[in-house]
Amino acid sequence: MEHLEYQEGRTEIGHLGKVALIDRLTDGFERRNASTVKGVGDDAAVLGTGATKTLVTTQTLVEGIHFDMMYTPLKHLGYKALAIAISNLAAMNATPKQALVSIAASNRYSVEALEELYAGIRLCCNRYDVDLAGGETVTNRMGLVITVTAIGEAAEEKITYRSGAKLHDLICVSGDLGSAYCGLLILEREKVTYQANPNFQPDLDGFDYVLERYLKPEPRMDIVKLLGEKGVVPTSMIDVSGGLASEMLHLCKASKCGCEVYEERIPIDYQTTRVCSEMSKNMLPVSCALNGGEDYELLFTIRQSDYETVKEMSEVHIIGHITEEGSAAVMVTPQNTTIELRAQGFQGEE
Amino acid sequence: MEHLEYQEGRTEIGHLGKVALIDRLTDGFERRNASTVKGVGDDAAVLGTGATKTLVTTQTLVEGIHFDMMYTPLKHLGYKALAIAISNLAAMNATPKQALVSIAASNRYSVEALEELYAGIRLCCNRYDVDLAGGETVTNRMGLVITVTAIGEAAEEKITYRSGAKLHDLICVSGDLGSAYCGLLILEREKVTYQANPNFQPDLDGFDYVLERYLKPEPRMDIVKLLGEKGVVPTSMIDVSGGLASEMLHLCKASKCGCEVYEERIPIDYQTTRVCSEMSKNMLPVSCALNGGEDYELLFTIRQSDYETVKEMSEVHIIGHITEEGSAAVMVTPQNTTIELRAQGFQGEE
Repeated sequence: MEHLEYQEGRTEIGHLGKVALIDRLTDGFERRNASTVKGVGDDAAVLGTGATKTLVTTQTLVEGIHFDMMYTPLKHLGYKALAIAISNLAAMNATPKQALVSIAASNRYSVEALEELYAGIRLCCNRYDVDLAGGETVTNRMGLVITVTAIGEAAEEKITYRSGAKLHDLICVSGDLGSAYCGLLILEREKVTYQANPNFQPDLDGFDYVLERYLKPEPRMDIVKLLGEKGVVPTSMIDVSGGLASEMLHLCKASKCGCEVYEERIPIDYQTTRVCSEMSKNMLPVSCALNGGEDYELLFTIRQSDYETVKEMSEVHIIGHITEEGSAAVMVTPQNTTIELRAQGFQGEE
Repeated sequence: MEHLEYQEGRTEIGHLGKVALIDRLTDGFERRNASTVKGVGDDAAVLGTGATKTLVTTQTLVEGIHFDMMYTPLKHLGYKALAIAISNLAAMNATPKQALVSIAASNRYSVEALEELYAGIRLCCNRYDVDLAGGETVTNRMGLVITVTAIGEAAEEKITYRSGAKLHDLICVSGDLGSAYCGLLILEREKVTYQANPNFQPDLDGFDYVLERYLKPEPRMDIVKLLGEKGVVPTSMIDVSGGLASEMLHLCKASKCGCEVYEERIPIDYQTTRVCSEMSKNMLPVSCALNGGEDYELLFTIRQSDYETVKEMSEVHIIGHITEEGSAAVMVTPQNTTIELRAQGFQGEE
């Protein structure tokens, strides 16, 4: 009979970063099959022996950790759960094809509630041409846990890993950063006000963009498609699920390089700036971009020779460049001081 | 702000069977990709456009629902979580190749505890030549939820669906049935005794087989291999995760047929019989086989022309035959009375 709590010499999971934890847990596993091209350590596994590879990724969302039922419509939640799994495939430069959805739900959830969740999943399937190909629904003791497995395809030579960035490559990011986190801040603020006074009507006017960014993110398949059409294969890529800082560090670590990111180049929406100024005079929009997370934009590097092509892409911003192995990952401020990037993130991301 | 509990006209999840629930939730989803050969509705999804297909399945285990930490060693749990996902691939006549493991764990679990879990996963990976290819570990508010995605391969013509059974086909089952459930009964009995008196030493002597059946099931890849070597492709197949009764009904429903299973042919281990007689004089071993579940044996049908080959397989038992569409799924007793099979199962299975 086991007593987990009283174990001696225990290490708390929170003491390790997410990546360090996976590294420790998967230490000692061997590769046995030729069809396992890339296993643990990127946004998706790469499988198969042919020219077209199969990419597989899983993403788990836990109630009370990754979402709050107080302000998360189930339809949005279903959409988001699949969207962020697809985003992992986008980060590999792959095209999504199928998904399997496993749900553990307590008896607090009715069949009608799960139908709402599935309506969101269906919307996302239709939007991104993904087939729901399986999964299961089991009983949970408390709350809701959703695990989505997304499966995609890519030609071998198009697959983009975290590890391919080379010296002098340009660092690019799609869309804008920090807005999803600002959406979360607004929702948390309204929740607190509502809990103090249940007759209170939430005031979400003028925050539509940041709220949608948090509640219903879109994987940037449009960017994957555009890059493909223009013949640009990024040298490395990752999606921004944590903040820009932690994702940049992942790329640099995997690619064995440093980087310089220019603060003034980091794309930030005006609603993000507005939320920051409303929240606190000390809250900087760039901090939301660096540490907020959940933007699900694509962070990638390109060869200098692709500069002319990429600078024409209105949704892609060139924010810096790769520096040599051994150098730090830094942000350069408008005052030309450099600040070392550090992983903070939120919600259990490193 | 949502109040899930007070929804009007709500249908409890438990009111629908597992299959009826998935049918309802996945209603209205369309197939969009040619590479989705088989989606929802079998043990695994079948994907790909080539002659060799990729099979993908997910399996979720929830603490307090599917396992009890009072008597489940974490190493066994890790092994079992992967083993039962592999069993889904075995049920499609496929060979496992990779797995992704997603874990949601509360802070009650230390890194060392997760290492134990992963040690079990590694053991199972090594045993069945599976590569751990990804996954993640996230924070859970309470308890442990493990979702394993298993990926396998099979030649298109070898893939065995639930839907292929034909009139007069013979019904076969591997190993023995009911023993895993008897293992669970013993563990539950010892738990109750322990809770009443924590100084009590559990007495598990003589129950090693049924305990191992419950705590550390083995997917029947040996049967898949043997059938392949002997050139037998089952006409339909499913793994026995619920009881024999519910699995037989799944096969009959998918294959649009009835069946006759002979009670005296159902393979039952002597330890199963012993546990039943110890537990209660009203407890029949055949009830454990029909309704117990978690045996992870293979239930399949073969053409009559394969009879001579299959009857030589010591681990395969021919227990009945398929009857025509519209006829019931029944068990025939030694007294030659027929009893209609009904799904009961345990642990949230239908």
